[in-house]
Amino acid sequence: MSTSPSHLLSLRDLDRPAWNALLEQAERLSGPAGRQPLLAGKRFGSVFFNPSLRTRTAFDIAALDLGAHAVTLNVGGGLWSLEYRDGVVMDGAHAEHVKEGFAVLARMVDALGLRAFAGMLDARADARDEVLHAAARASSVPVLSLESAMDHPHQGLADALTVRRRVGERSKVVVTWAPHIKPLPLAVPHAGTLAFAHEGHDVVVAHPAGFELDEGVLAAARGLAAAAGGSLAVTHDRAAALEGARVVYAKSWGARAHYGDPAAGAAAVQAHPDWTVDGAAMARTDGGIFMHCLPVRRGVVVADEVLDSAASVVIDQAAARLDVQKATLCRAMGVTA
Amino acid sequence: MSTSPSHLLSLRDLDRPAWNALLEQAERLSGPAGRQPLLAGKRFGSVFFNPSLRTRTAFDIAALDLGAHAVTLNVGGGLWSLEYRDGVVMDGAHAEHVKEGFAVLARMVDALGLRAFAGMLDARADARDEVLHAAARASSVPVLSLESAMDHPHQGLADALTVRRRVGERSKVVVTWAPHIKPLPLAVPHAGTLAFAHEGHDVVVAHPAGFELDEGVLAAARGLAAAAGGSLAVTHDRAAALEGARVVYAKSWGARAHYGDPAAGAAAVQAHPDWTVDGAAMARTDGGIFMHCLPVRRGVVVADEVLDSAASVVIDQAAARLDVQKATLCRAMGVTA
Amino acid sequence: MSTSPSHLLSLRDLDRPAWNALLEQAERLSGPAGRQPLLAGKRFGSVFFNPSLRTRTAFDIAALDLGAHAVTLNVGGGLWSLEYRDGVVMDGAHAEHVKEGFAVLARMVDALGLRAFAGMLDARADARDEVLHAAARASSVPVLSLESAMDHPHQGLADALTVRRRVGERSKVVVTWAPHIKPLPLAVPHAGTLAFAHEGHDVVVAHPAGFELDEGVLAAARGLAAAAGGSLAVTHDRAAALEGARVVYAKSWGARAHYGDPAAGAAAVQAHPDWTVDGAAMARTDGGIFMHCLPVRRGVVVADEVLDSAASVVIDQAAARLDVQKATLCRAMGVTA
Repeated sequence: MSTSPSHLLSLRDLDRPAWNALLEQAERLSGPAGRQPLLAGKRFGSVFFNPSLRTRTAFDIAALDLGAHAVTLNVGGGLWSLEYRDGVVMDGAHAEHVKEGFAVLARMVDALGLRAFAGMLDARADARDEVLHAAARASSVPVLSLESAMDHPHQGLADALTVRRRVGERSKVVVTWAPHIKPLPLAVPHAGTLAFAHEGHDVVVAHPAGFELDEGVLAAARGLAAAAGGSLAVTHDRAAALEGARVVYAKSWGARAHYGDPAAGAAAVQAHPDWTVDGAAMARTDGGIFMHCLPVRRGVVVADEVLDSAASVVIDQAAARLDVQKATLCRAMGVTA
Repeated sequence: MSTSPSHLLSLRDLDRPAWNALLEQAERLSGPAGRQPLLAGKRFGSVFFNPSLRTRTAFDIAALDLGAHAVTLNVGGGLWSLEYRDGVVMDGAHAEHVKEGFAVLARMVDALGLRAFAGMLDARADARDEVLHAAARASSVPVLSLESAMDHPHQGLADALTVRRRVGERSKVVVTWAPHIKPLPLAVPHAGTLAFAHEGHDVVVAHPAGFELDEGVLAAARGLAAAAGGSLAVTHDRAAALEGARVVYAKSWGARAHYGDPAAGAAAVQAHPDWTVDGAAMARTDGGIFMHCLPVRRGVVVADEVLDSAASVVIDQAAARLDVQKATLCRAMGVTA
Repeated sequence: MSTSPSHLLSLRDLDRPAWNALLEQAERLSGPAGRQPLLAGKRFGSVFFNPSLRTRTAFDIAALDLGAHAVTLNVGGGLWSLEYRDGVVMDGAHAEHVKEGFAVLARMVDALGLRAFAGMLDARADARDEVLHAAARASSVPVLSLESAMDHPHQGLADALTVRRRVGERSKVVVTWAPHIKPLPLAVPHAGTLAFAHEGHDVVVAHPAGFELDEGVLAAARGLAAAAGGSLAVTHDRAAALEGARVVYAKSWGARAHYGDPAAGAAAVQAHPDWTVDGAAMARTDGGIFMHCLPVRRGVVVADEVLDSAASVVIDQAAARLDVQKATLCRAMGVTA
């Protein structure tokens, strides 16, 4: 819905040259070039509707390393609650509209970030990512998604960079559902699937029946995979998926059938404890690495024996956020390193 | 109550030279002069008892643009709850007294800001702005009000600057009450009234019966208006007020008769839906501009047709905060650009 | 439990040369040397499980003064809730483990701080300071305690520096329990006791029966006092303790017998109102100064007549935090001024 080429709202919006340019820029900026004043005097403002550790810290440090400055605002933590729908009478809890909020911030900074998780009440509404698109329309400067209902582009970029560094060649990559105590949004499995499709890997999305990803995202990922010489498959058979895998990318997410019913949603994600990634699961792979976006629940999503093993690259994944966020800041601010 | 001339606690405290100097400084700092290290090595600390988007972001960026640094602290968001009354036994919820809190902060920074909204339980107590004055007494460095019960000086300064830029000459300016879902403090209508009185406009404050502003503020505004060659009137007849207006400055506020009774207060502000500023209201003006301090509730305070029209200058108003806050920082830190 | 010599988890871990080096460095950095880019390009990240005014502001300014940058994260204020126990199935409220959280942050910054107050449910668990030690084990960069269950090293350092400046020579220093409305942790009385023991003062810890400090801390303090040529005594007789004292260091803390029973704990700290430090108490001393770490409850812990008198050095104590935190940052980052 956004027309500015310099927004970064979803990995679906990036063509192959743009995707590769970002990852190559991230790789360059991971070295000494990542600490020079390429963005001197620039400001990045970010608005978080939801918690964050990695994203906010990485943007703060990334901006600083490049001579810029990051301002972080938390909705509900000292910030007004924000409305995003058009044409509504604002007689409820929301004191400010995204239209004004983002238009104002855009007058003070050079790029804006927004984190707005899925509502998980209405899958169709989530699929429209309305807050994010409303913010992008209201902003006169580029808007970066710091995770929306549908996608988490910086996570996907960091994941792809980590696999480039660790595996390199075209490989079997399994995006596998995992148990949890409550239903979680789809943004990260979407991001991982899109990222590995962009990279031309042989992506297998494994989950129990009922945990289907968004069809539009899967269709986009199939197109990206085909264009990049890779493939995309979906299966309910995790054991078969793990055979020969070089990458096990674990994440829990909720079943859309239970949106709006948290108890049923929680029961559903607790109903498949055998999907926890443990040593036996990893033993099926071809010396695969274990990936997770963090935060991760030990003993629920993944066994300690895997997370604490040499196969786990989760800390490297998180550290790669610094590199990719430098790259997306440079892109948003029109600077090439 | 404060004796230091470099505090900025209320627009009432500024004489004409000081008022004009601030606005002229703000205008100068809106250009390239606003991005030079006039305040290199200086620090500004601000304490927020209430939410903020524009104020905190604008101070953060203003400080940065001038080579200084802003530290923002949220009461209740990682900060101790603060007592401000003298002589009390602190056996309740407040863990720290403003006396210590501000005295300590004053040892670490060069100027301090404080946001403390009205309690709306006792109009007389609100009129004393005790938290703000206690902070100013405790601080060895200048204290800036970032909105108190009685005034919002940076908002008034930004509003005056916006009208100078958009209208320029002496004009009819209507500060008009608007509906809401709950009673709000008087700080912003006070600030707007004082600011436009300082500017020598013909100010008309329009509101339904029962929504009188503070008498002390109105008396001060009358004095300022007279000194500046303007005028101040109060009316219950909005239609007449809007005739010939060049500026429509909308804001909702609560009726003091209902302080301490939120239900009655809410009913009162919902009882005049015809005071929403819509296209018909704007049509009565002399091509007037629409102003609001933000955040604003669409469809309640103002119709979308007005807020989204070319007459609306609300984003410019907010952007002007950056300019005036640079000016007040320079004043507080004894620097002239 | 931590092996890295550059962590600062407790004052118990510092030997005499390290203790003195920190205080001498702090004194040097209190002058113009405290505003030079000794730490240019360095980053300090801090994670707060609990509120803070002085600690966070002082680290922010200290880092800035030395050319570094501080990133502050609040658990529960935009940050994921953190688990710290080993081997647990994370099926409760905690979304992230300290192992991942601190390992990730350590990849982005040069040193980390952590504030995690006592749980006050289980004195033995508190004595192990598990969150802090888990963070130190997970971090590849030095970790500084910003107050744990057992100690508050930066407070103790600032207190020692303040007494060096105000009193100088070996003196009688009374760490005296004070009333409160609820039971508080032991970290500050521990820190004060350890700090004054390090300094070779004649330390008297005075409290009503039942308010014993941690035995391990007292044993450590006795050892430090002996090594420094001072002494440590514990008494229930405050009047005798105050005779001849040069320093009255007041603080309330809870009785460990009531851990897990907040009502009984509150009753216990309210049962000795005569322990409030008032003018009569100060009159027993040898012109003693009054110290408190802040925040302090006026009329409960200390009478206004004392806190507002010339004998009170509480603001200087807090201001000294800036100096000592510069010193601990330099130590953590391997820089000597």
